[in-house]
Amino acid sequence: MAVPYSPGLEGIVAAQTEISEVDGKNGRLIYRGGYLIHEVADRSFEDVAYLLWNGELPTARQGEEFRQKLGAGRRLDAAALAALGGLPTDADPMDALRTLLSAQGAAPDCPKPNLDAAIAATAVTPAAIASFYRHTRGQELIEPRPDLGHAANFLYMLDGEEPDPRRTHYLETYLVLLADHGLNASTFTARVVASTGSDLWSAIVAAVGALKGPAHGGAATAAIKMIEQVGGPDNAERFVIDTLNSKGRLMGFGHRVYRTYDPRARILRDLCREANREFYDVAFRVEEVALRELLARHPERPNATNVDYWSAGVLGAAGFPKEYFACVFAASRMAGWTAHVLEYMAKDGRIIRPASQWVGPDPDKRTAVTA
Amino acid sequence: MAVPYSPGLEGIVAAQTEISEVDGKNGRLIYRGGYLIHEVADRSFEDVAYLLWNGELPTARQGEEFRQKLGAGRRLDAAALAALGGLPTDADPMDALRTLLSAQGAAPDCPKPNLDAAIAATAVTPAAIASFYRHTRGQELIEPRPDLGHAANFLYMLDGEEPDPRRTHYLETYLVLLADHGLNASTFTARVVASTGSDLWSAIVAAVGALKGPAHGGAATAAIKMIEQVGGPDNAERFVIDTLNSKGRLMGFGHRVYRTYDPRARILRDLCREANREFYDVAFRVEEVALRELLARHPERPNATNVDYWSAGVLGAAGFPKEYFACVFAASRMAGWTAHVLEYMAKDGRIIRPASQWVGPDPDKRTAVTA
Repeated sequence: MAVPYSPGLEGIVAAQTEISEVDGKNGRLIYRGGYLIHEVADRSFEDVAYLLWNGELPTARQGEEFRQKLGAGRRLDAAALAALGGLPTDADPMDALRTLLSAQGAAPDCPKPNLDAAIAATAVTPAAIASFYRHTRGQELIEPRPDLGHAANFLYMLDGEEPDPRRTHYLETYLVLLADHGLNASTFTARVVASTGSDLWSAIVAAVGALKGPAHGGAATAAIKMIEQVGGPDNAERFVIDTLNSKGRLMGFGHRVYRTYDPRARILRDLCREANREFYDVAFRVEEVALRELLARHPERPNATNVDYWSAGVLGAAGFPKEYFACVFAASRMAGWTAHVLEYMAKDGRIIRPASQWVGPDPDKRTAVTA
Repeated sequence: MAVPYSPGLEGIVAAQTEISEVDGKNGRLIYRGGYLIHEVADRSFEDVAYLLWNGELPTARQGEEFRQKLGAGRRLDAAALAALGGLPTDADPMDALRTLLSAQGAAPDCPKPNLDAAIAATAVTPAAIASFYRHTRGQELIEPRPDLGHAANFLYMLDGEEPDPRRTHYLETYLVLLADHGLNASTFTARVVASTGSDLWSAIVAAVGALKGPAHGGAATAAIKMIEQVGGPDNAERFVIDTLNSKGRLMGFGHRVYRTYDPRARILRDLCREANREFYDVAFRVEEVALRELLARHPERPNATNVDYWSAGVLGAAGFPKEYFACVFAASRMAGWTAHVLEYMAKDGRIIRPASQWVGPDPDKRTAVTA
């Protein structure tokens, strides 16, 4: 009757979804409506969030209305500002984001998740990240600019200067590519929370906590640290071989679902070549050696480059310090998390409550011993 | 290859655990070490938290040391106090708890969950709840009393008076009975978050969000509202029949796992008779009619009384307003959540990332149409 224990729930279907599909075998990522990721890679983040929420890309008029709506929600409320003021400046930025979103979402009762809440959470996330960034530097907060797009305003709120369009483009591409990705751990977390009938903010606060993990949103930071450690392309060969020989782990390779090169990694790699040549030259050489060595050592195991590897170079070029990479990931995935919550409400609604297998002592035997 | 989609992951084994086992068929709840719930029902919350964390009940000396350790962690830190000051007084208490725990847990980097973090989170939860309770009433916060037990201090921090031992007993029994319950949705949430390598506070903040849902921690509040609506025992017959005839839902009956009377509900029912006679008289009669009618209408369906039903009367007698019931549930389950996180770290560690089934359009067909 019972299905055997499957660690990590690998291969267990926990949702039917039309938000996105990771077609690992063919190395494709499909977004809602059937769009392949490369078909929307040059769209704005707003367009893609609209697509994930509504099922189709906006018309010009819909797009303009939607940009205004999203642009109007970039202010932290009094609760979030009070929480910000008390946060230790050495706190992990993901802890800050988790706290500020929780404060911003504090409201009476338990409102059912809806599109307005999805827009509010997505709109305010860059403001929360940028405000903590400035708080840690003892700088005044920057007022949001509703006339700027989502990506440009994000960068603007970091340093108060209208960003170079190239930086905006790097960030925008990243935000679009990472906006959804099937039933990853943080999205699944959001769905589990929503399945109890909880509100949207509870779901996304939980998702931020899941994304924080080094095996999830923390991976891009680990990748850039590795590339920094390598130092230059000439060190790549020795670094990779030494790491593998000493049973160390190379960051940025392998994925639960992809069996080929991650299609997002390919786009980010090409962008990185243009955006961050210093990173690219080292990373390209490390990748070359790593893929060769991993194949030689584990021919049975797919070990393609994952998205975190090339994300690191692009986010660096966009101007984010590496300890903020997971936060930018959250700003992107917010569109997907909230789309999944709305889908769950509309389609499913059954509480997610799996079974467990007892591996502790039998109470009858215990009682017999003490009796 | 793939397992078919199982809504709510019903029957899917997502963990091997020795923290607790819901033996639904026999109506038994087993705590770590093989203890049946009635065997530990008269223990202190501290003893049971110790059991869930360490695998055995404490000796007298261990128990004393442990009480001191737990008693020393009842202060909100500066970050949590700042967040508290900004919370709207009409916020749902669970939103407040989520925010205060998130602020309290804000720290550098991503520390691996350990027993000290479990103790810190569990110790501070009643303080967070009581402080928000007083904040909403414009009252000064009460300093914790390290000399009081966990339950007594919780009540003390609500109103600044040493509580009647009977109220402490009601709360203590509730805290012990609800401390863990297999792989319920909030515990599963905590495990999913921990599976990414995230920190303990991220896991328990996420769990609070899941528990907030009306299908989970919100159920006891719904039950007491129903009993209040009934008004008196003489109205029970008509209320139950009218509700069922109009396809309404009776709160407090049925459970995903139990096929018989929930063993915790039995203990709380008996306690309720002594603690809250007014509630008991109505609830007893409603239960009688409800079980009779549910059996007559759905003989194929198990519809026993669940723990939320009798929790409502006991928490009311302990002195909590009904909008705080889910928070008290969180204060209890914190022991279980953290025990599961520690177990996950020690035993498993694989990221929980289930599969999904794509039900959106095929990108090849979409491309063909637009080509």
